[in-house]
Amino acid sequence: MNQAETFLETVKNRTSCRNYLDEDLSDEEINFCLEAARLAPSACNKQPWRFIVVKDLETRTRICRDGLLPGIPMPWLKTVPVIIALCAERATSTHRLAPLFSGVNYELIDCGIAGEHLVLAAETLGLGSCWIGWFKPGKIRRLLKLPRSLKPVSLISLGRPEKKTEPRSRLELKNIARINKW
Amino acid sequence: MNQAETFLETVKNRTSCRNYLDEDLSDEEINFCLEAARLAPSACNKQPWRFIVVKDLETRTRICRDGLLPGIPMPWLKTVPVIIALCAERATSTHRLAPLFSGVNYELIDCGIAGEHLVLAAETLGLGSCWIGWFKPGKIRRLLKLPRSLKPVSLISLGRPEKKTEPRSRLELKNIARINKW
Repeated sequence: MNQAETFLETVKNRTSCRNYLDEDLSDEEINFCLEAARLAPSACNKQPWRFIVVKDLETRTRICRDGLLPGIPMPWLKTVPVIIALCAERATSTHRLAPLFSGVNYELIDCGIAGEHLVLAAETLGLGSCWIGWFKPGKIRRLLKLPRSLKPVSLISLGRPEKKTEPRSRLELKNIARINKW
Repeated sequence: MNQAETFLETVKNRTSCRNYLDEDLSDEEINFCLEAARLAPSACNKQPWRFIVVKDLETRTRICRDGLLPGIPMPWLKTVPVIIALCAERATSTHRLAPLFSGVNYELIDCGIAGEHLVLAAETLGLGSCWIGWFKPGKIRRLLKLPRSLKPVSLISLGRPEKKTEPRSRLELKNIARINKW
């Protein structure tokens, strides 16, 4: 396969993993994923992303017990060896002033970009991951000692998949893309 | 190179391209990039991304003339064969109610994820791209006939690079990542 085909395979094989082996990851694996995220593009190159890599069992247990919003049970999260808290550090010019003109909170787009670099990198290593947005921001802030300048925007689970999750359906291209105008 | 090394090469080689050849892209190239974006993950699988692929010269010219905010000249955008307007379609439950609890506008994160799938896919084809956030949302809305339900969140240029852009510097890993707590 050429580079493009390999990339599309990676994209197709990435599914949100909710079954993990209770097995640690190596620092090399974690750092590979972080390195891919570090190199992501961002508005004005501000790189607003910050990552707290939670490996400590007690902290992970408290995230699972106190840090998640109710209504979507995530028992599988208890066996994930690494929970990454993705946070945004907002710069005054790019993240507070510029959105007044463009209407866009760039730090969220940029955190999406960097987080997905991490997720795709994990997939290329054979690791599983899952974006988790359903958390209590105040609890996460206290558990991870986040300063006021950092806003938690997502958790990402990272570990060795126990089994492959089937991909969920997607809208057809004709429903999400049009030519020249909507 | 194995799959992981190939991916990191793609990430390293992707730079924001601001020099394009005045040369059309094929539908196959454009559709490959859109397909990678289509398969992206999203909160509750809502797939809020919508893409308007602007190929028409007159519309591109009007975007360049009327659709950009002042202060950051982008003369290079005039020769880009394709300008993609990335828009968000907000669902009530996931994008209007859930953020009241989590504090996160998931549609922006998801558009970042899908847009970056497109950008990385372009890189694997040898194409250049650039995220452009500095636009006038009202003008873009009118030029592209966006319904009220669609919010433009970024433009992405897409074309054949005239020359390779050098990567910009990045923060070191120790400045963006910590273990267990911040």
